[in-house]
Amino acid sequence: MKLDSNLKNNSITQDMKTQFRNFPMVPRVIFGSGCFSQLGDILLPKRKSSEAPFIFLVDDFFENEEFVSKVPTMFNDEIIFISADEEPKTAQVDALVAQIREKYSELPSGVIGIGGGTLLDLAKAVSILLNNKGLAKEYQGWDLVGKPALYHVGVPTISGTGAEVSRTTVLLGPEKKLGINSDYTTFDQVLLDPDFTKTVPKDQWFYTGMDCFIHCVESLTGTYLNAFSQSYGEKSMELCKEVFLGDISESDSRDKLMMASWHGGMSIAYSQVGIAHAMSYGLSYQLGIKHGIGNCLVFQYLEEFYPEGVALFNQMMEKHDIQLPKGICANLTQDDFDIMIGVSLSLEPLWENALGKDWKETITPEKLQEMFQKI
Amino acid sequence: MKLDSNLKNNSITQDMKTQFRNFPMVPRVIFGSGCFSQLGDILLPKRKSSEAPFIFLVDDFFENEEFVSKVPTMFNDEIIFISADEEPKTAQVDALVAQIREKYSELPSGVIGIGGGTLLDLAKAVSILLNNKGLAKEYQGWDLVGKPALYHVGVPTISGTGAEVSRTTVLLGPEKKLGINSDYTTFDQVLLDPDFTKTVPKDQWFYTGMDCFIHCVESLTGTYLNAFSQSYGEKSMELCKEVFLGDISESDSRDKLMMASWHGGMSIAYSQVGIAHAMSYGLSYQLGIKHGIGNCLVFQYLEEFYPEGVALFNQMMEKHDIQLPKGICANLTQDDFDIMIGVSLSLEPLWENALGKDWKETITPEKLQEMFQKI
Repeated sequence: MKLDSNLKNNSITQDMKTQFRNFPMVPRVIFGSGCFSQLGDILLPKRKSSEAPFIFLVDDFFENEEFVSKVPTMFNDEIIFISADEEPKTAQVDALVAQIREKYSELPSGVIGIGGGTLLDLAKAVSILLNNKGLAKEYQGWDLVGKPALYHVGVPTISGTGAEVSRTTVLLGPEKKLGINSDYTTFDQVLLDPDFTKTVPKDQWFYTGMDCFIHCVESLTGTYLNAFSQSYGEKSMELCKEVFLGDISESDSRDKLMMASWHGGMSIAYSQVGIAHAMSYGLSYQLGIKHGIGNCLVFQYLEEFYPEGVALFNQMMEKHDIQLPKGICANLTQDDFDIMIGVSLSLEPLWENALGKDWKETITPEKLQEMFQKI
Repeated sequence: MKLDSNLKNNSITQDMKTQFRNFPMVPRVIFGSGCFSQLGDILLPKRKSSEAPFIFLVDDFFENEEFVSKVPTMFNDEIIFISADEEPKTAQVDALVAQIREKYSELPSGVIGIGGGTLLDLAKAVSILLNNKGLAKEYQGWDLVGKPALYHVGVPTISGTGAEVSRTTVLLGPEKKLGINSDYTTFDQVLLDPDFTKTVPKDQWFYTGMDCFIHCVESLTGTYLNAFSQSYGEKSMELCKEVFLGDISESDSRDKLMMASWHGGMSIAYSQVGIAHAMSYGLSYQLGIKHGIGNCLVFQYLEEFYPEGVALFNQMMEKHDIQLPKGICANLTQDDFDIMIGVSLSLEPLWENALGKDWKETITPEKLQEMFQKI
């Protein structure tokens, strides 16, 4: 994977340049255990014709008869199962769009993403590209999308990423990893059914939940915060504490983690993440480590910067008996380190948010390499 | 004012009948001290033509040159100043709509409400009626609006009502007081500029803030709560405590109360208010007492039902040296009491939320009269 200077223009970064950002919220949300049963009624008035299908993009974790029987397909609707083992790619979006265009005489009525961040981001991107000419890579950046996306619905099946409320869809392209950041990216409808999270494997539940927790630590201790983002971030943090350190029922835990992710995502409106995300991005870029566990691998060693957050994190790790892999950076070459360090340092606003304008006095390439070497 | 059986179909009531309500959120929000300066840029792409004006409905508290100079009027835009001394009326909406229709050759580009709950509700209703035939009273009820409202923007200048995020606009009609409850009622854009609340008179600041606080107490202790509404209600409650009991700067206080109102309004999605609102509605209906102070007048005597909430309320009253009027119900006739009791008891879901399905065992007309007589 090639180091790319565009990387520094990540979504969170760019958006912070606007002091008064006019934030697009998801205009319609339904919440509750079992509310997936309402999806058919929600989609019905959005059907353009019997020839214009709904396309369901679904994590292949759910590829079984019981799940399929619950998806409210009609007419020529299609369910496409997709693996979430790898991050979503621009070529994957283009292939899906070409496949859908070729198969149907009319544009779809809409796209429904059912899964974690990967599936939600794919649904956002496919709905944009179905109504805009060209290739996905041409829209990576800020406000490059000219026409509204097709109607698109997000159904998160794991909690923590905040992708259900964000205005970006991060894609790995041939030349850069960058989001399609657009007001048209935000879902038209989100369905929050905590029942989906019953079957999440424990490690994945923890790592994705920590994505939310770490995001809140970084946002709330940062220099960019305002009262809007603070209120969402604080609530998200409290919910994370209840879920990962409290003594609550499994049902309450599912409900609360889903709301933590929701509020955590909203808190990004006028805030910024920090050191763990900057370093985690380096790990993901060079070593292909997924975002949730990458954040955890980094964050455990950041007590110097986030003492309270790391103390809480360690309590959470202990309570849930999570063993993080060790020696991830043990056998890397200097080239590997240089690339990871370059990627991390390019995310300047994340460092500035964390440490203030003089962050370069604290964080040198040497210091950062020492930090990576602990992992 | 005539007692009307339709009163019991108040907005909060009816909406609770749907377990899985698909809640419409404000699709666009901008927050920050001074962000009113962005309104012109926000409106520009929404202008349909130079002949299609924006209509600004503004609380006449702001009727001065300095304010007018800040309103981003262009072409034939119009500012209409309106008193918020009385609750908004259907006839008032109809008169505004007729006046606007007569004056302009084209439908307006949109309507902007700048003020408290009264002005926000008027802006919602006028934007609906400008794009739907007939009279406002014909749309009082649930989902009776056939066509979308004109583009409409809410700019709250006082914090607490939550009208900036709700899907209703409560109007006093010739036969009933009832909201226009519709997915089209919700604002298309909200602008949250805490600077507006600098000039709110202290009593009004307190009473309107208590609308939010009491709403949270009732919602969070109620039987209807789910995790979605709880998370918003809890955050709103925390912010109220910071604002009214904490030791924070005036600037922080304005920011936080604006967010408290926002989250408090969101918490209504799947929750319900309770006894104070039910009784306050009776006071407003029969005695014309405005909603904020009405809630306070009732709530101070509800320690039997909300012991923790009333204890906090008393602390807040003391800290801010608020003196509530006394003897409001001292010279009322039995007819007055009967009407107030009838209005209150008709709001069944509020009582059920507060006390459970067997609420009639606790609350009899005699008991309720005793409660009113304290006020």
